[in-house]
Amino acid sequence: MSVAIVGAGPGDPGLVTVRALELVRACQVLVYDRLVSEELYAEASHAIRVARDGLTQERVNELLVRQGRRGRRVVRLKGGDPFVFGRGAEEVEALEAAGVPYEVVPGVSTLTALPGLAGIPLTTRGIADQVTVVTGTRADGGGLDLGRLAATPGTLVVFMGLHRLDEIAAGLIAAGRSQHEGAAVASRLSLPDHELRIGTLGTIAALAHDLQTPALVVVGDVVGLALRPETLWSAAGD
Amino acid sequence: MSVAIVGAGPGDPGLVTVRALELVRACQVLVYDRLVSEELYAEASHAIRVARDGLTQERVNELLVRQGRRGRRVVRLKGGDPFVFGRGAEEVEALEAAGVPYEVVPGVSTLTALPGLAGIPLTTRGIADQVTVVTGTRADGGGLDLGRLAATPGTLVVFMGLHRLDEIAAGLIAAGRSQHEGAAVASRLSLPDHELRIGTLGTIAALAHDLQTPALVVVGDVVGLALRPETLWSAAGD
Repeated sequence: MSVAIVGAGPGDPGLVTVRALELVRACQVLVYDRLVSEELYAEASHAIRVARDGLTQERVNELLVRQGRRGRRVVRLKGGDPFVFGRGAEEVEALEAAGVPYEVVPGVSTLTALPGLAGIPLTTRGIADQVTVVTGTRADGGGLDLGRLAATPGTLVVFMGLHRLDEIAAGLIAAGRSQHEGAAVASRLSLPDHELRIGTLGTIAALAHDLQTPALVVVGDVVGLALRPETLWSAAGD
Repeated sequence: MSVAIVGAGPGDPGLVTVRALELVRACQVLVYDRLVSEELYAEASHAIRVARDGLTQERVNELLVRQGRRGRRVVRLKGGDPFVFGRGAEEVEALEAAGVPYEVVPGVSTLTALPGLAGIPLTTRGIADQVTVVTGTRADGGGLDLGRLAATPGTLVVFMGLHRLDEIAAGLIAAGRSQHEGAAVASRLSLPDHELRIGTLGTIAALAHDLQTPALVVVGDVVGLALRPETLWSAAGD
């Protein structure tokens, strides 16, 4: 395969997959996200490394197609998993359309890392049988359908919702959820400066106002199961 | 840490995390699920290896606590991610209650592996803004609330729903979903004998009747975006 769309995991270098590391070490061109760890970036010191930050999505697509056509070993390294609100599908479509061979390597998503790293299960027998995942930043720029989300049972996880947390919490309460329901924000999961704030729908916006992105917002009874902070998983090798 | 609750990923040895591999190689006791790959199992040939299959959940909890108290390096290796319907929380609670130190290492869930390995995105701008994840096997043994799920927008993913696929598809149609809506089953994702069947709510139960577990059921417009089978990711080293 010429181009690999690779999930880098949530940030901790220990949470990269074996296959991802192998591809990064062998690549000639690395196109990487802001959230990729320095350790992983350093593994591609032999390669041409291009930060995705300064580029539009269209430019990224073009770059992957052009380098792929030249037969270069290209790795597109994305934070978390490439397809969980990661726009990996747009890059794959561009490669498909251009007939450039590619592979996709899934990564550990911050979504699935949440239970292990923040001690909050997504589902637990008898407490929450389902989880609904949304993005706080919609394609059409519109707001979330908070009325419908409020009526949805189980756990709610919001990606990229930190900047709208006030609105989200107030909207869920207005639509019938209790202000005492558990709510949490997990900021920069797996990174050394990670922070977890636990409160309720009524308090979480104030509690989390100074947290950094990326962050996941979690709403539901599972928040009450949050485990002791000292048991949180820390960096590999600790 | 004495006991590590570790996600093994969906099965392909390349989709294990660096940290998981390190822990497996260093462990003294390995308690493993049926879905763990032979390659990963072989990495712990020096350890006492205990198959989880023959044990009740209570026995597994006891084993982890007992070995952890003795200070042994114990790895509890679970298919996918330990907390996505993986009952990892029950094991963590037992360790907490016993005061045994532990760590959790998230893994690549079949949920997030689905887009990369089966070519079906969970969400895509403009087509599905949210994904709802449920288990087909509920704690209370009851059925899914198909009426409510039918009214939930976005993508629906059902874990452990293959044996009830007939009922699930018929129930969603009865509750108002179109029989022409896209539906797919991804069986044994990332394993050499993986299979993907793509159809509609009206056809999927018949199409997928002979598939093996574990399998994910996916319902929604994203199924129409399924990519060409020849671009599916295959085993590391291909």
